[in-house]
Amino acid sequence: MDLGSPKIEAVLRLCAILLLVLVACLVGLDSQTKSLVYLEKTVTYKDLKALQALVYVNSVAACYNLIQLISRGSFLARYKGSFKSSYRYVDWGCYLLDQTAVYITFAATSAALEHSVLVVTGAEAMQWMKWCNKFTRFCDQIGGALICSYIACAFMGFISSISALNLFRLYSPKHFLLLKTN
Amino acid sequence: MDLGSPKIEAVLRLCAILLLVLVACLVGLDSQTKSLVYLEKTVTYKDLKALQALVYVNSVAACYNLIQLISRGSFLARYKGSFKSSYRYVDWGCYLLDQTAVYITFAATSAALEHSVLVVTGAEAMQWMKWCNKFTRFCDQIGGALICSYIACAFMGFISSISALNLFRLYSPKHFLLLKTN
Repeated sequence: MDLGSPKIEAVLRLCAILLLVLVACLVGLDSQTKSLVYLEKTVTYKDLKALQALVYVNSVAACYNLIQLISRGSFLARYKGSFKSSYRYVDWGCYLLDQTAVYITFAATSAALEHSVLVVTGAEAMQWMKWCNKFTRFCDQIGGALICSYIACAFMGFISSISALNLFRLYSPKHFLLLKTN
Repeated sequence: MDLGSPKIEAVLRLCAILLLVLVACLVGLDSQTKSLVYLEKTVTYKDLKALQALVYVNSVAACYNLIQLISRGSFLARYKGSFKSSYRYVDWGCYLLDQTAVYITFAATSAALEHSVLVVTGAEAMQWMKWCNKFTRFCDQIGGALICSYIACAFMGFISSISALNLFRLYSPKHFLLLKTN
């Protein structure tokens, strides 16, 4: 009977979901209006494509983890029985999906970070001006969201490690990609 | 006797090293000079911080994979003996290092891609002008390098899956994080 792994996995998934939703809200609801010299300008996440992508990716990742959490919960019965190798296709699926989810979320977060760094520093060589000295509160909120997003990625990384453990411990330690016979 | 896994791993590592070096060279040696209205402007990878980071990260990743390849080659003897759980610390180290390597390379590539997209499209909301209509050859070379970098990431992803397999198949399929006794 192995109940340790699903419980840890469920807690990690719940944390990841909460963080992913928090990030999507922090970025999606962030907006600041400021009157520059002669016009009023409002910035939202829609002005930066990378932030828009971050909101969408994090929402999808949160939904995916919620579905996994629910389906795993209803699937828990199988862990109460003995080890069965016939579930290895499910484990392969979970492993690949978890890996994909963490890589895509991580890529979206890194892209948003790179874009944000450019907004903070500007790029002199390209005559791109910096904006964060004008929209400070907006930028601070995005910064907090990016930190949360990286923490969510770390949780999802742990989850994908547990998926890998659940999958690969079904295989023989002596032969490559051969299932255990016990 | 399990010789399949180390052989596949060695081939994958070699491919990854070649691609990573190729990317570092493509980006690092890319440069284009063009006379704009009244001045001559040369662009290199040093004008974009994300490209600079990509060159450094890919060089370090190539070195890491080379070290792993050499040390694994000299360590191959252990695979000729029977399964020994005393090597699990080495396997844990390899797994964590491989995971770190692929995540950092992937993040650097995604950040460089995001920066490159900005250079191609510009950002109207921020009054950032596009540059690729002026430096076409430079941009094409960077685009090719980014594709190679993503392929290298895929190879490194496979390698980290093999590391996970090598590590986690030492563990019992029935109990969480308990080593097998056979």
